[in-house]
Amino acid sequence: MTSAKVPPEFVSFAHELAEASGKVIARYFRQPIDIITKEDLSPVTIADRETESAMRALIEARFPGHGIVGEEHGSEKRDAEFVWVLDPIDGTKSFISGRPLFGTLIALCQRGRPVLGVIDHPAIGERWIGAHGHPTLFQGKPVKVRACPDLAKASLFASSPEMFDPEDQPRYQRLRHACKMSVYGSDCYHYGIVASGFGDVAIEANMGIYDYLSTVPVVEGAGGIVTDWQGNALTMASDDKVLACGDRRAHEKVLKLIA
Amino acid sequence: MTSAKVPPEFVSFAHELAEASGKVIARYFRQPIDIITKEDLSPVTIADRETESAMRALIEARFPGHGIVGEEHGSEKRDAEFVWVLDPIDGTKSFISGRPLFGTLIALCQRGRPVLGVIDHPAIGERWIGAHGHPTLFQGKPVKVRACPDLAKASLFASSPEMFDPEDQPRYQRLRHACKMSVYGSDCYHYGIVASGFGDVAIEANMGIYDYLSTVPVVEGAGGIVTDWQGNALTMASDDKVLACGDRRAHEKVLKLIA
Repeated sequence: MTSAKVPPEFVSFAHELAEASGKVIARYFRQPIDIITKEDLSPVTIADRETESAMRALIEARFPGHGIVGEEHGSEKRDAEFVWVLDPIDGTKSFISGRPLFGTLIALCQRGRPVLGVIDHPAIGERWIGAHGHPTLFQGKPVKVRACPDLAKASLFASSPEMFDPEDQPRYQRLRHACKMSVYGSDCYHYGIVASGFGDVAIEANMGIYDYLSTVPVVEGAGGIVTDWQGNALTMASDDKVLACGDRRAHEKVLKLIA
Repeated sequence: MTSAKVPPEFVSFAHELAEASGKVIARYFRQPIDIITKEDLSPVTIADRETESAMRALIEARFPGHGIVGEEHGSEKRDAEFVWVLDPIDGTKSFISGRPLFGTLIALCQRGRPVLGVIDHPAIGERWIGAHGHPTLFQGKPVKVRACPDLAKASLFASSPEMFDPEDQPRYQRLRHACKMSVYGSDCYHYGIVASGFGDVAIEANMGIYDYLSTVPVVEGAGGIVTDWQGNALTMASDDKVLACGDRRAHEKVLKLIA
């Protein structure tokens, strides 16, 4: 992990990106819009595309040397020192269902590693932001993970138990039965729940880097840990699997369970 | 179904109940509170109990002849012509996770049948209310279900796929595979989604009458239908299973699939 403090101008710019994306999304949420089915059968809307375009335009104007990787419009200067990784609407199924827990995910990577992350929920006006050298903030106030070394007392979060491939199902089911309770359907909101100390373990699979890199500075800046399923730090080269825990002792136990 | 119009004084009183319950909940949401595990292993908090007590006190003062059935504090005058059926916090798992989609459910039954229902989400300030003879309102404005006769185009909602008993799993899985997409973890919010025309089918099991009677006037007042899994109207004597559809043609198809 880079230990350098993220410059405040990057932090304030990340807030600007979230404000701008929220304004585009507000024009489309709960309005009749066309839904396009992508090759992987996930839904995408004109709102996803316009929101990402708005953020890309701001980045290109302000930091023309930075790279951009977006879920909808692909990659530019992916090898730059600083790269913004964008998911305009994480939880498109929620978005098209009028369900306000979808979010906008913004990560800034330095040499491939996430150093700043935003989890923004424009429909309910809630935002987590984390950056190296800064405490993670929720609604502008610092948050902390909670202690929970014992999985039997842990609450577990995932978008859906159906997101795991057949070969991963036994791993997931071992974990689910080891935890006290499981809650589904939070989209990216559950990483905020872990950062704020209201939950303990979030696990997902079949994700893109834009789905999870932003969660790393948020959860780690609150005292937690986010890795892949082998315990490796997440980078722009990581695979599709994510494990976030508030308590590092729980994280070690989960890694053994899903090995 | 009773065709009589629900007196406006009952409708305005239901709003008062929702306002009062929301005030109690606001004192406890995202605060450290004790969690009690009930005999059925579901979590309950002091917030559940105080919220229900606040609503019961208002009902007893205003309508002393009415009955009350509450999830936390039991039944009184259950055989009265009018009975209020209360779930102070539907989605306690969400509530204790700082997740704002939990809701307060308020139903008024006349001779055992729900004639008025409120689905209130105090943490995000959203409320659906439906009553016989009145259009269902969301945030004070009338809402309508959407047409979706074809299950292959339908979105499906449930709290969790793990809520179905082993003997019901094949029924649920047939339905899930027939629908376009499944979304979990909405608690009672998904009945509002169906009423507002943002979703098509909500199905649940292992529920109490306080979990679903309120949804009937909300969804039916928007043009949809809510029944048990055999297609029977829901009453205070119904079992633990619920099926809500925005489009009656979809409802008939779902009933065949889960028969």
